[in-house]
Amino acid sequence: MTLQLPIVSARVFTSLATAGKQFSRKFSVTRKNNMRYVQYKLKSGGPQHLGAQLSPGGDIIDISAVDSTIPNNLVDFLKAGSSTYEKSKRIIGLNYSGHCDEQNIPYPKEPMYFSKFSSVVVGPNDNVVIPPITNSVDWEVELAVVIGRTAKAIREDQVQDYIFGYTVAQDISARDWQKKRNNGQMLLGKSMDTFCPLGPAVVTKSKVDVNNLNIKSWVNGVLKQNGNTSEMIFKVNFLVAYLSQIVTLYPGDVILTGTPAGVGVHRKPPEFLKPGDVLESEIEGIGRLRNEIV
Amino acid sequence: MTLQLPIVSARVFTSLATAGKQFSRKFSVTRKNNMRYVQYKLKSGGPQHLGAQLSPGGDIIDISAVDSTIPNNLVDFLKAGSSTYEKSKRIIGLNYSGHCDEQNIPYPKEPMYFSKFSSVVVGPNDNVVIPPITNSVDWEVELAVVIGRTAKAIREDQVQDYIFGYTVAQDISARDWQKKRNNGQMLLGKSMDTFCPLGPAVVTKSKVDVNNLNIKSWVNGVLKQNGNTSEMIFKVNFLVAYLSQIVTLYPGDVILTGTPAGVGVHRKPPEFLKPGDVLESEIEGIGRLRNEIV
Repeated sequence: MTLQLPIVSARVFTSLATAGKQFSRKFSVTRKNNMRYVQYKLKSGGPQHLGAQLSPGGDIIDISAVDSTIPNNLVDFLKAGSSTYEKSKRIIGLNYSGHCDEQNIPYPKEPMYFSKFSSVVVGPNDNVVIPPITNSVDWEVELAVVIGRTAKAIREDQVQDYIFGYTVAQDISARDWQKKRNNGQMLLGKSMDTFCPLGPAVVTKSKVDVNNLNIKSWVNGVLKQNGNTSEMIFKVNFLVAYLSQIVTLYPGDVILTGTPAGVGVHRKPPEFLKPGDVLESEIEGIGRLRNEIV
Repeated sequence: MTLQLPIVSARVFTSLATAGKQFSRKFSVTRKNNMRYVQYKLKSGGPQHLGAQLSPGGDIIDISAVDSTIPNNLVDFLKAGSSTYEKSKRIIGLNYSGHCDEQNIPYPKEPMYFSKFSSVVVGPNDNVVIPPITNSVDWEVELAVVIGRTAKAIREDQVQDYIFGYTVAQDISARDWQKKRNNGQMLLGKSMDTFCPLGPAVVTKSKVDVNNLNIKSWVNGVLKQNGNTSEMIFKVNFLVAYLSQIVTLYPGDVILTGTPAGVGVHRKPPEFLKPGDVLESEIEGIGRLRNEIV
């Protein structure tokens, strides 16, 4: 009965922290019964709602309707701060679960950041459009961090206080523009219209063990990427703390955290997306994107 | 009696189209009596206003107060489209002037674009903050194009229909981060907080000969940059048309167009900004920024 909308993020950061890293394959499939936040409209029309979905694919409680002081979109919800979040929790009865962090990979010196324009964000089931100026459009499933509070020069051990939750992103890339055009600046190759599917929901930080989540992508049903966030070279807390030293982060900012092995450009021979393909992207405990290529 | 606010742009694009180009020095100082758009608040408080300033430093007509259907900020004003613009013109009585374009510099193959986060935009008289993570903060005065209508894959000869006007920008840069850190991606070195002074007003496109404007900057009153937009390698129309092939442009987007010679890093010995310095940036017919460095 619902049509889910993308998170309209203030800004989208991306990091290549995991690029080039060979992810090992893990198959732990522990899932939790996760409450998640969704923006949606009814197919019958009407305004946008901010809802709490009780499980993946499950019922949605319209929290903005239950309490009219709660905004109907996630960015304003985040800006409204913790009292509004607490209100939403009282409505839906959150259950927190424990955290887990395992990591034994040596750190390179520093991560590298580039940006995607927030105007290229699309929803979890929207089409990805191949523009006429490229023929090397590629996939990168990534864990996306959603910032919940303004963060400036915070320490790694403070980061969790500033994160609202996590969602799934596809960092779609035109490899020719990313690597050979625009004098090495990745912006344009990463920022063509529709090049950032996000969704299907934001899972609050306490609902996932963010450093141990299976992360996968498929093209036309064939598994292409199969990793686990435990193998990220830079962990979420480090990536956010580092970036906050350089620029103030605001509620609604989305930070992509890099992709596991298996993208098209590094296959032999290279593979690129073509019209008619179906790209699916999944992170354990968060959900799955399904985007048709047109 | 007014405090002018920065244009809160949807996105800030920048181009290095003129980087490395030795601008010749021109001293034509033709100025026009230009009506310009400003966002402002009264020092006594109250809400933001969108106003029409009849001349640089002159009286401001509160167009959003005269007609309550006119938004009180420039982005919403641009989104509202031509009928709202026409309404504002009827209120203030615009006078159009002619254009002029002279250019005889060979074109390199293509321009290069990077981005600055719109969160780092500050006003024409705001402080620029040197963060503790850099000691090589530099100046770049640039002509900034303000997009007025959604533009996708437009031709060069259509661009003027999509431009609302022009303003003055300072593309403040941390040269160490721009050139040596972040693996060559310029984003972070260009996007530290306060690194994009904009203003003091948006001059509508018909009020300036955009390809023949003196453009200058001073540090502590000493002239550092002294060029003319006639010497841009890529003209405004080309820069906008080219970018619109890659990503849809939206009302309120700001495109910086490169800087003339005279920046600090290329001086012998190099010069960088330090706390207490005063940076002034001026484009003929548009206005002057005055930013203290702290």
